[in-house]
Amino acid sequence: MASKRPAFPKYLRISQDIIEMIRSGELTVGAKAPSENEIIERYKVSNTTARKALQEIEQAGWVTRIKARGTFVRDSRVGRSVDRILGFTRNMIEAGRKPSTKVLDVRVRDAVESLTLNGRRYQLRGPICVIERLRFGDDIPMMKEIRYIALSLCPGIERKDLTQSLYSIYEKDYGLRLLEVNQTLSAVMLERKRDLDLFQLDDVTPAFLVEGATFCGKDVILEMESSLYRGDQYRFSVKAS
Amino acid sequence: MASKRPAFPKYLRISQDIIEMIRSGELTVGAKAPSENEIIERYKVSNTTARKALQEIEQAGWVTRIKARGTFVRDSRVGRSVDRILGFTRNMIEAGRKPSTKVLDVRVRDAVESLTLNGRRYQLRGPICVIERLRFGDDIPMMKEIRYIALSLCPGIERKDLTQSLYSIYEKDYGLRLLEVNQTLSAVMLERKRDLDLFQLDDVTPAFLVEGATFCGKDVILEMESSLYRGDQYRFSVKAS
Repeated sequence: MASKRPAFPKYLRISQDIIEMIRSGELTVGAKAPSENEIIERYKVSNTTARKALQEIEQAGWVTRIKARGTFVRDSRVGRSVDRILGFTRNMIEAGRKPSTKVLDVRVRDAVESLTLNGRRYQLRGPICVIERLRFGDDIPMMKEIRYIALSLCPGIERKDLTQSLYSIYEKDYGLRLLEVNQTLSAVMLERKRDLDLFQLDDVTPAFLVEGATFCGKDVILEMESSLYRGDQYRFSVKAS
Repeated sequence: MASKRPAFPKYLRISQDIIEMIRSGELTVGAKAPSENEIIERYKVSNTTARKALQEIEQAGWVTRIKARGTFVRDSRVGRSVDRILGFTRNMIEAGRKPSTKVLDVRVRDAVESLTLNGRRYQLRGPICVIERLRFGDDIPMMKEIRYIALSLCPGIERKDLTQSLYSIYEKDYGLRLLEVNQTLSAVMLERKRDLDLFQLDDVTPAFLVEGATFCGKDVILEMESSLYRGDQYRFSVKAS
């Protein structure tokens, strides 16, 4: 089909065009993607090429084809329910994405770390282990977290393999049970160069800043966290009653 | 004290300067505001003027003075807990702000309205009443909402005084009890001119898009909503266990 050899396949160029329309917001979630006939007309290609282009964006998860109705832009963000205790690793597995973790920094500090959540001030007395990690789903950087962990409850955690789930380390290695997580969500923008580079983003992108304290007993704080979740990759859900 | 009559009082100019530093993010929540001595030095004013400037920004709620420690930038956002059913009006009263409402649009439609929440599709069959409102706390535009209400459950609601709390209309006028609210939070940016104008904002501002369905019986949807909450005015809180 491709006559000139080094040329980029036409169907891939078309699919990238459409993906770019979705990324840029020109086509929003629920909107109808161009049909086979519209692609044939707009790009002057065969119906085989048009079909391959649509298959390509469907396989990449950007759209869903509904029989006899057309092709629609999907919400491909990962859903995260915020009213249950849910680690990143399990959330990714439930969403069908392969989790992985890059440890950016590990430090031991003797200071007191404090955090104001919903007007109440929480303190974690030193020594604490401060871990900064970037977490991936299917190799896409999804969120960046800073965890402040009470070393009195998890002595030596700084020497463990910290690419693992911390929740599973708490439970398996230290026999701790997580009772409650108090969290505050802020709407922020990723705009500093360091954040954009970490998340491999070109443009300012909305995000959630999640600050929280995790308790493993009444008033016993096991860890505090401050994490950035990409808004283009996450939607948070919650049930109120 | 003021010798040149029409001049803007010095202490007010200083307080506005500091408030601008907070608004612009130059001074962030928890940061130390300039001390009396720093103000005296920077602006070449008396200690009375410096003290009045600090009192001014404290009374306006931007900072808290902690004895023997200094003056710190406060988190002045309204906290909203997302794991309980909480109307705007009550949330504002609890936060100590005076709620008010501007009705932007009211329409009756015969269509089906549908919404995807956490991967599940919800439908509200017509006729429905669509109400668009802008809601204020202490005269600051806090959030903009579109509510889609089942007219079969609330006949004639389009003719009520819609500056009131809809939750109280449901309960008092129609005897409906709200059982559960399912919500999805997205991180977005207010950047379209219409949104910036409505919220009286000059610059792109992060926000929460809250989409939800409210049930007044098992599988009986009373209303669906799509609301924008200003990220600079709100922080959301939730407890997971």
